[in-house]
Amino acid sequence: MPASEFTLIKRYFQKTTDDALVQCAIGDDAAIVRIPDKMELAISTDTLLQNVHFSAQTNPADIAYKALAVNISDMVAMAAQPKWVLLSISLPDNDEEWIRQFASSFLEQTKQHKISLIGGDLSRGPLSITVQIHGLLPEGTALKRSGAKPNDLIYVTGTLGDAGVGLDILKQKITVATQHRPWFLACLNRPKINIEAGIRLRTIANSAIDISDGLLADLQHILDASQLGAEITMEQLPLSLAMCKTVAKTTAWNYALTAGDDYQLCFTATQNKQQQIITIFKQLDIPVCQIGKTTMMQGLRCKKADSTDFIPAGHAYTHF
Amino acid sequence: MPASEFTLIKRYFQKTTDDALVQCAIGDDAAIVRIPDKMELAISTDTLLQNVHFSAQTNPADIAYKALAVNISDMVAMAAQPKWVLLSISLPDNDEEWIRQFASSFLEQTKQHKISLIGGDLSRGPLSITVQIHGLLPEGTALKRSGAKPNDLIYVTGTLGDAGVGLDILKQKITVATQHRPWFLACLNRPKINIEAGIRLRTIANSAIDISDGLLADLQHILDASQLGAEITMEQLPLSLAMCKTVAKTTAWNYALTAGDDYQLCFTATQNKQQQIITIFKQLDIPVCQIGKTTMMQGLRCKKADSTDFIPAGHAYTHF
Repeated sequence: MPASEFTLIKRYFQKTTDDALVQCAIGDDAAIVRIPDKMELAISTDTLLQNVHFSAQTNPADIAYKALAVNISDMVAMAAQPKWVLLSISLPDNDEEWIRQFASSFLEQTKQHKISLIGGDLSRGPLSITVQIHGLLPEGTALKRSGAKPNDLIYVTGTLGDAGVGLDILKQKITVATQHRPWFLACLNRPKINIEAGIRLRTIANSAIDISDGLLADLQHILDASQLGAEITMEQLPLSLAMCKTVAKTTAWNYALTAGDDYQLCFTATQNKQQQIITIFKQLDIPVCQIGKTTMMQGLRCKKADSTDFIPAGHAYTHF
Repeated sequence: MPASEFTLIKRYFQKTTDDALVQCAIGDDAAIVRIPDKMELAISTDTLLQNVHFSAQTNPADIAYKALAVNISDMVAMAAQPKWVLLSISLPDNDEEWIRQFASSFLEQTKQHKISLIGGDLSRGPLSITVQIHGLLPEGTALKRSGAKPNDLIYVTGTLGDAGVGLDILKQKITVATQHRPWFLACLNRPKINIEAGIRLRTIANSAIDISDGLLADLQHILDASQLGAEITMEQLPLSLAMCKTVAKTTAWNYALTAGDDYQLCFTATQNKQQQIITIFKQLDIPVCQIGKTTMMQGLRCKKADSTDFIPAGHAYTHF
């Protein structure tokens, strides 16, 4: 007889936590946690579905990595310190080896970030992973989408569009030189999230979002929430060396603007914070680029250095 | 062009909340909430999958009702006051009418219980609903599975096994008289959850669990966590009139012991609390039955009034 839901959860997921705020973790009807005085709780959830967010070929360790990473990314975008996660898995068959590999990768990453797995759910069904994440931040310090001010400088971390190329490699829509393939696939499957980036921006940035649906779509969320427009300069978009070696400039810009899954941070800050921002990201060893600025006039304009407009070819990736 | 994820969320789910503890709800990277002093947070999640937890025939309003009810039930079993939910939907096609009906039922129930929907996720994929629920309770008052003491009396609310008959009606494994059909289907699709029951038991009960996988399986979770055994008396199990009219006694007992989806409360309390418990449930107008007691000796014995053993025929329902 194959192991039951309860046995599998006990065997692979029911680790003890040393977080003193956790009063009760996996193994009861609910987890119980305490929130320190003067702190707020940030809560978010993201689902990854096979054939939508990852392919049937993606290995369980990569799925686990990404399921957690995209949720951590939401905490970073709010400037919260991720603390606790719940994990709901629906799995077509009772594949214990799949669960073992998934759990090992998931728990390795929670350990690395001092996050406790405190609950969840295991059902039989089409492969899907839902993670709910909880983070702490001092009262009133959340970086909301609605906080951008006119003439804020707009920044992004890392490089843009690489995960989109990775996805097109898997879909066989693009061929890339052998030496660049691992980079693009790593950007797709193992986006690097830096928790400190969000936290250090708490008193510096005015607004932030993580880029999951493409820069244009996500920056637009900030602009909508803040009732502003923006102007970005194409030549300032950060592109990886692999990207520059692989596709022509306009193709690269389209990837950068409209491909999803980058999980870089996009944020805005008043101009006088620029030096502080450069210093912070130098300390964190994370590339950061100023790509444009917000405007009182609504609309998001993509211009080239010669002041002509760039019209993006693609559409933002949508999960629905 | 069909409405996007963002449009649908805005159109049907993005209601404002009047909960002063909610600093930021739907529409940012995460929700932000505050926890009052001296309170703890209970967190739980449950997924409902088509063909596992409900059939393809189940209407969206019933799915929405149950997705929330089973999560509220976990809060009740911890003695928490449910406050905030996140809702992740995966839906095969962009069926706006389905979403409208689902959202209407879901939000009607959140309103009734003063629960705020503060976040979620909408993706295209096989139909599945994951709700994550958050509740508040005074520090240290959670009703854990591990709190049962030897010689505690064991209680259950409502009647048992009716949802199991409802499921067998849908599976065409059983035929029931026309006048009883609505009762069984309502027990399956619209389990009634009473939030006050959990809260009133805070200082009274020693342990509690909600019956989702069948009385035997769920009571066993209490016994395992508390390192105890139990003896229950079959004649004391609460059966509905419809159940008694529909099946023979031993069949009814098997439904009561092993059918899932009842979402009644099973709890234990020391013997001297019996009068208080009767009074509380009379005030709440909820039937409550004492069905047995915990024992120092491990093992769960089902005995009949004549002291012979009853051996259940079925197995606890498992979602994996």
